Amino acid sequence: MTGNGSLPTMKDVARSAGVALGTVSKVFNNIPVGDSYRQRVLEAADRLGYQVNNYARGLKTNRTYAVAFIVPNLELPFFAILTQNICQALERRGYRMILALTDFSPDTEQSCVRMAQQNKVDGIIGLTYNPNLHLKDSIPFVSFDRYFSSSIPCVASDNFGGGQMAAEKLIELGCRKLLFLRIGSSVSGETDKRGDGFEVCCRAKGFPCDSLRLFNEDGYEPFKEFLAAHIHDGKLDYDGIFCASDGLAMAIRANLAEWGILVPRDVQIIGFDGIPVWGSGLPCSTIVQPVAQLAETCVDIVLKEDRTEQPSLICLPVCYASGGTTRDS
Amino acid sequence: MTGNGSLPTMKDVARSAGVALGTVSKVFNNIPVGDSYRQRVLEAADRLGYQVNNYARGLKTNRTYAVAFIVPNLELPFFAILTQNICQALERRGYRMILALTDFSPDTEQSCVRMAQQNKVDGIIGLTYNPNLHLKDSIPFVSFDRYFSSSIPCVASDNFGGGQMAAEKLIELGCRKLLFLRIGSSVSGETDKRGDGFEVCCRAKGFPCDSLRLFNEDGYEPFKEFLAAHIHDGKLDYDGIFCASDGLAMAIRANLAEWGILVPRDVQIIGFDGIPVWGSGLPCSTIVQPVAQLAETCVDIVLKEDRTEQPSLICLPVCYASGGTTRDS
Repeated sequence: MTGNGSLPTMKDVARSAGVALGTVSKVFNNIPVGDSYRQRVLEAADRLGYQVNNYARGLKTNRTYAVAFIVPNLELPFFAILTQNICQALERRGYRMILALTDFSPDTEQSCVRMAQQNKVDGIIGLTYNPNLHLKDSIPFVSFDRYFSSSIPCVASDNFGGGQMAAEKLIELGCRKLLFLRIGSSVSGETDKRGDGFEVCCRAKGFPCDSLRLFNEDGYEPFKEFLAAHIHDGKLDYDGIFCASDGLAMAIRANLAEWGILVPRDVQIIGFDGIPVWGSGLPCSTIVQPVAQLAETCVDIVLKEDRTEQPSLICLPVCYASGGTTRDS
Repeated sequence: MTGNGSLPTMKDVARSAGVALGTVSKVFNNIPVGDSYRQRVLEAADRLGYQVNNYARGLKTNRTYAVAFIVPNLELPFFAILTQNICQALERRGYRMILALTDFSPDTEQSCVRMAQQNKVDGIIGLTYNPNLHLKDSIPFVSFDRYFSSSIPCVASDNFGGGQMAAEKLIELGCRKLLFLRIGSSVSGETDKRGDGFEVCCRAKGFPCDSLRLFNEDGYEPFKEFLAAHIHDGKLDYDGIFCASDGLAMAIRANLAEWGILVPRDVQIIGFDGIPVWGSGLPCSTIVQPVAQLAETCVDIVLKEDRTEQPSLICLPVCYASGGTTRDS
């Protein structure tokens, strides 16, 4: 790194841009100024090679303009798109994202929180699976999909409503023998409500509903055994399946095809998430999570100065979209 | 934030852990110490609520232990998985990733570089599309998939070799009328070599090869028109297609199916990337990019203290994997 002696200062930028020193300060502190002023300041800064010393700035303002986002991985399309939307929402507000991946490990989650606190971020957004995560009051924390306590805001889709919506749609499309499938963490969370909503709605409408809820450690094999046990004379016992994710819906569809059972001809399937596959649209009929709004909400709450009277659980509305695995496509 | 008066110090941690002060310092500066010592220090730090002041540390060591990664988005599976692998490679070295998304905008790319420089990161890894990106010598920059100059290391897959490999495989599988398709940025980059390698290999082996190379701004429509013009009596003029990405391969496959042309029965397709679809394995037969090694290489180079004698282009080997769109599956 270069020494400080010859570096241009804010005053140099102000002189070169022909604006007041306060205007330069505003631009670099993300305080609104007119677009033309902003442009002139940024151009002058570029011309002179001026760099804000965010470390000094951080020490002075007690803000770092950084938010940590903790998420298991970017392999699941929903995780990738949620990360993208949160990063974009932060960038729009002049903040940057520190990305921390945990691969579902509770220990790694705790050390990511520690890392974030050590780096004095202005907030943490966490999609975590450690119910005993130790959080400090000093840094705002917003939890995605996991409710901790009334003092920690949790943002999620309306998972229960989405489950109900899936049941209503399958029944509307003529399904009478319904099945719910999920595989996920053994730690309970908001996403468990997808199955709850589905079962409640099926029961209320008077149709039978079976369920198979697996944990990640069970692996995929029990699904195959379950389906095999429910095929008689080449026919599946169910005519409508709700899967807790689009990924699972695609895997189940591929599995049924091996037994000659075709979707949506023989059985209709609805998934959950609604992330389009690049170049191919939606992977299946699905309950779509409002990813952009979920991201905006997480960022709004984590950056909110006034932390009194925060809601403890914010559920955003989902919607149904047809995508080839139901007979409305 | 809490004041500094009552906060535990490194000395308190050393006393509580029963280790020397130097050991505590090593742990928090990511200098290797025995695992049991490391464990004791981290436990004591947690117990006491000790937080490293990384701002003070950054000012002292002139390191921030942060690396910026600049990438267009996380929608393309390859971008998502590359981001994941780079983030994990940084975490393993005690560094954190600042994620910056650009949506392919050259202006946003430039302002991401500016942001990274302002935040005095220890390095920048960029997957960018701005050939005129203005970079400062003071911060190490590693470019992914785009060659700037001999002084800026570029890391990429062996794209040319991958194209050759695709041609060899299709010819080995009996294809004689070959086609190359790509859609991508109008800014030239390393990935252009996929088609070059394919065409060179087809020509060398004495088989004809057509190509359609589109820019993102052209949209997908010209592919449909091209294919429609090359179908005669329900038969496609080609029996082997190499697509520059798996996403394009999937889209082309879906398109051909609409005309009753089936893959791999009527035409065999090989894509490029090799990112598995969650729950369904590889989307198609493909040339697999070595994502984990690409990520490790980017991180190794960007963090290397000695920046003399750096290679200017590092190409890592790819491999072929069968995935249902060729007749070897």
